[in-house]
Amino acid sequence: MLSEDELGRLCVVLVRARDPNNIGAVARAMYDFGFHDLRLVNEYPVPLERARSAIDASSVLEIAREFTTVAEAVTDCTLVVGTTAVGLRRKEHPLHTLAEAAPLLRAELSRVELASTGPKARVALIFGSEKTGLSNEELSHCHWLLTIPMHQTEGMRHASMNLGQAAAVCLYELVRNPETESLQEPVQPATAEDLERLTQLTIEVMETSGYAQRHPANFDETLVRRLVLHMGLDRPHALAWTGILRQLLWKLRNPQDAAQH
Amino acid sequence: MLSEDELGRLCVVLVRARDPNNIGAVARAMYDFGFHDLRLVNEYPVPLERARSAIDASSVLEIAREFTTVAEAVTDCTLVVGTTAVGLRRKEHPLHTLAEAAPLLRAELSRVELASTGPKARVALIFGSEKTGLSNEELSHCHWLLTIPMHQTEGMRHASMNLGQAAAVCLYELVRNPETESLQEPVQPATAEDLERLTQLTIEVMETSGYAQRHPANFDETLVRRLVLHMGLDRPHALAWTGILRQLLWKLRNPQDAAQH
Repeated sequence: MLSEDELGRLCVVLVRARDPNNIGAVARAMYDFGFHDLRLVNEYPVPLERARSAIDASSVLEIAREFTTVAEAVTDCTLVVGTTAVGLRRKEHPLHTLAEAAPLLRAELSRVELASTGPKARVALIFGSEKTGLSNEELSHCHWLLTIPMHQTEGMRHASMNLGQAAAVCLYELVRNPETESLQEPVQPATAEDLERLTQLTIEVMETSGYAQRHPANFDETLVRRLVLHMGLDRPHALAWTGILRQLLWKLRNPQDAAQH
Repeated sequence: MLSEDELGRLCVVLVRARDPNNIGAVARAMYDFGFHDLRLVNEYPVPLERARSAIDASSVLEIAREFTTVAEAVTDCTLVVGTTAVGLRRKEHPLHTLAEAAPLLRAELSRVELASTGPKARVALIFGSEKTGLSNEELSHCHWLLTIPMHQTEGMRHASMNLGQAAAVCLYELVRNPETESLQEPVQPATAEDLERLTQLTIEVMETSGYAQRHPANFDETLVRRLVLHMGLDRPHALAWTGILRQLLWKLRNPQDAAQH
C-alpha cells in the first residue's frame, strides 16, 4: 500500500500526446488510483483545455505542467522509467515486465524514508505517443524500460495499447495490494440444526407430493441430507428455504384452503 | 498463464453500454490480452457499427453478439461475476477485490480439464453502464462480485472507473503472470581486469590534468578504485569509458596536435 506521500512522488510524463481524450483518460486513471503529478512534453502547446473537461480528473489536469523536452520534465526525478511495447524495444535498455517493475518502482518511492538528506526520491513513468512510442533520444533519459505483456497472435502485427488503458493498467499494478483485508461481509453460517430441519422438511415434501412413491430409489434420508449439505447454505438462506418448504407443505396438505395459514 | 482454450472460455458482457468508443475500448483491451467473446446486453440496438471501427479490435467486434437480457447473455456460463464500484456494492452479494477474484476466475476457466462431461466451464464477467452500474435484477444473476480498489479521498464522491480502463485492468489481472520468464537481455559483466584498466586510466587522467595536485586529499588509488567499482558498469560500458579516457589522455599529452592519433 503506497502512502499519500509515496503516491505524490510518482509523476506520469506523457510525451507527444495529442488527443485530449487520451490525456483526459490518463488523468482519470491517475485520479482513480490516487496519483496527481501529470507532466506533458510537447514541442507545441497541448490542447490541455479540452482535456481539462474530462470527468472526475479535473484536479489532476488543473495542476498538470507542460515541458518542451523529456530532460526538463524529469530534472527532479531519481528514477526515470520508460514504457514500451515489446515490439518496439531497444535491446540496449534493460526491460522488465510490469509485474516485475512495480516492486522496483515502489522501492524507489519509499526510499526517501531511508535517506533523509539529498534530493527526495521521485519516480517518472514515461509514456510515448501511441503511434511511435518513445524516440531513441527520449529513451536515453530512462534508467530502464517496462512493458505490459500482451497476447501474441502469430503472424499478426500488434499495435501498442491504448494510452489511457496502458496508464490505468500500470497505475493499478503500482497500487495493487493482494494482502488487502477482505471485502467479504462476515457470513452467518448455518448450524447443523438449521440444515437438519431443512432435510426433514424436504423429506416431508417428497413424501407428501408423491415423489417418494414414484421414485423410491431416490428417496433415502442420507441422500437427501447430502443434497441439502451440498447446497452450501448460509443461515439466512437456510431459514429462507425452510419458510418456503413449510408453506409448500401446508399447501400440499390443504389444497382447497385459499388462506395463507 | 491461460491457455488459448481458457482465454476462449471467458466472455465479457457489457450491459447498457451506449458509447461506441467505450465498446471499442473494451474490445481493444480484450484483443490486447487475448480474449474474444464479447456480448452486449441492451434493450435497443447498440451502435455496434460505429464501435466496429475501433482500431485493432475488429476481430473481437465482428463476432460480438447482442442479447436483450443478462439471463440470455449468460445461459452457457458456469460462473457469472459482476463488477461494481465499492460505493455501489450490495451487501447481499459476496465481494472480492480484483486481485482476490482473479485466481477464482482462472480456476473456473481451467476446471474443464478435470470434468470432461457436462457443460464446459465458461465464465462471464459483467460490466454495467458507467453511470448506474448493474441493477439489482442484473446483479441477481451473479454468483459474486468483484471490485477494482480505488483511491478514497475523504469527503469526495468517487465515480466508477472509465469502462474501457476498468475492462483493461480486469483482463490484465486475469493474464498477469509474475512468474513469466524475464525479458532481460543477458548482461555481459565487466571483468576485474576491465575495471582495473579503467581505474589506472582514471588515475593517469587525474595526474595529467592536474586534479591530483590541486586535490591531493581526493587522490588515492583505493578511493578511485571504489569510484569505478560503484559505477556498476557492464563490459560494453566499461570498454566505452576506457576508449573515452584513452583519447582524453592522449589529448592532454598532445594539446597542439590536431590529429586523432
